[in-house]
Amino acid sequence: MQKWKVLDSEYLYKTAHGNLRKDKCLLENDLVIEQYHVNEFADWVNAVVMTKKQEVILVKQYRHGGNDFFYEVPAGVAEEGESNTQAIKREVLEETGFQSDTEPIWLGEFFVNPATQNNKVISYFIPDAYPASAQNLDATENIEVHKIPIIELEKRINNGEILQMFSNFAFLLAKKHIN
Amino acid sequence: MQKWKVLDSEYLYKTAHGNLRKDKCLLENDLVIEQYHVNEFADWVNAVVMTKKQEVILVKQYRHGGNDFFYEVPAGVAEEGESNTQAIKREVLEETGFQSDTEPIWLGEFFVNPATQNNKVISYFIPDAYPASAQNLDATENIEVHKIPIIELEKRINNGEILQMFSNFAFLLAKKHIN
Repeated sequence: MQKWKVLDSEYLYKTAHGNLRKDKCLLENDLVIEQYHVNEFADWVNAVVMTKKQEVILVKQYRHGGNDFFYEVPAGVAEEGESNTQAIKREVLEETGFQSDTEPIWLGEFFVNPATQNNKVISYFIPDAYPASAQNLDATENIEVHKIPIIELEKRINNGEILQMFSNFAFLLAKKHIN
Repeated sequence: MQKWKVLDSEYLYKTAHGNLRKDKCLLENDLVIEQYHVNEFADWVNAVVMTKKQEVILVKQYRHGGNDFFYEVPAGVAEEGESNTQAIKREVLEETGFQSDTEPIWLGEFFVNPATQNNKVISYFIPDAYPASAQNLDATENIEVHKIPIIELEKRINNGEILQMFSNFAFLLAKKHIN
C-alpha cells in the first residue's frame, strides 16, 4: 500500500480560517485523480468544562454549515506562540467567561476527517471551573452560555439533543474522569 | 439569536463526492461576511462490525487529506434509493467481504462539523459478522481488512494508535452493546 503521488497542486483559496487545496494525484495502480480537494485547517482544541457542582458548560450558537443552532463544547484554535493548553484555556474564558485553577487534562487527539482534511482535534477535560469574567467575543460570534447538570446532559445526549459529533465525542472521552 | 441571511451564493465546484459553496452572509449585528465556505456532502454511514468471537473488523487505507494510512471503521454513502441500513450493509460487504444476519443497530446520528459542513454521520453496530465474499472495491480504493480482538483494539485505542475521530467515536458508542 502506497501514498498517492501529487503531480500538481494549487490553492483555490486561502483564508484566516483555512485553505482549500486541489491536488492532481497518481495512485499506485497508475490511475490519476484529476481533482482531489483537501481542506487545510489549523489543529482545533476543545474541552469538556465542568464546575465543582458537576455542571457542564456548553455554548450554543448558529452554525452556518448546518444551518441551525447547536450546543457544543467550547473550542478554537491556538494563536501564534500558544500551546494547545494555553489556547483552550483562553478560548474557554473568551467564549464562556469560565476558568479553572486546575490544568486541562488531555483526553486524546484525533484526525477530524483524514479523507478530506489535514487537521486534528485535541480534546481536554477542565474540571473545577468557575465564572471569572464576562465573555470576550469576536464581532462575528454570538454565543449563549449554558450550565447544564451532568445528569441532565446525559439525558439530553441519550435523547439525541446534542447533535454535534465533536461535543459528544469529547464528552464520552471525559466520562472516565467524572465520578 | 438569529440565523445568518444569505445575500449571495455560488458553487466553486460540484463533484460526485461533494460540493463547495461560497455564501455572502448578513449577521444579526449587521456585519457582512463576504465569503463563507460550506462543504456540502451527502450524509455518511459507518459501522462498528464485530464477529461472534468479538473481533472488530477495521479497514486500513491511505487518506490523502491526512497524508497517512489510517485504521477506520467501514463507512460510505447511501446510493440512490437505498436506506441508511441498506447502505452500511452494502459498504461493509464491499469494503471487507463481511456480512451479518443481524440487522444493524442504530447508535446515533450527528452533524460532523456544522460550522463548515452540512452533513451528518449515522453510526451503527453490526454484531455477528462473518466472511461472506471477496472485497468489491472501486478503482481508486486499496483497502486492507484487519480483524482485531476487541481487547487488543481497546489497548490500541488507549495507546493512541487509532487516530481517526469517527472510528473512535463509533467504537465508544458501540461499547454499551458489547459485553
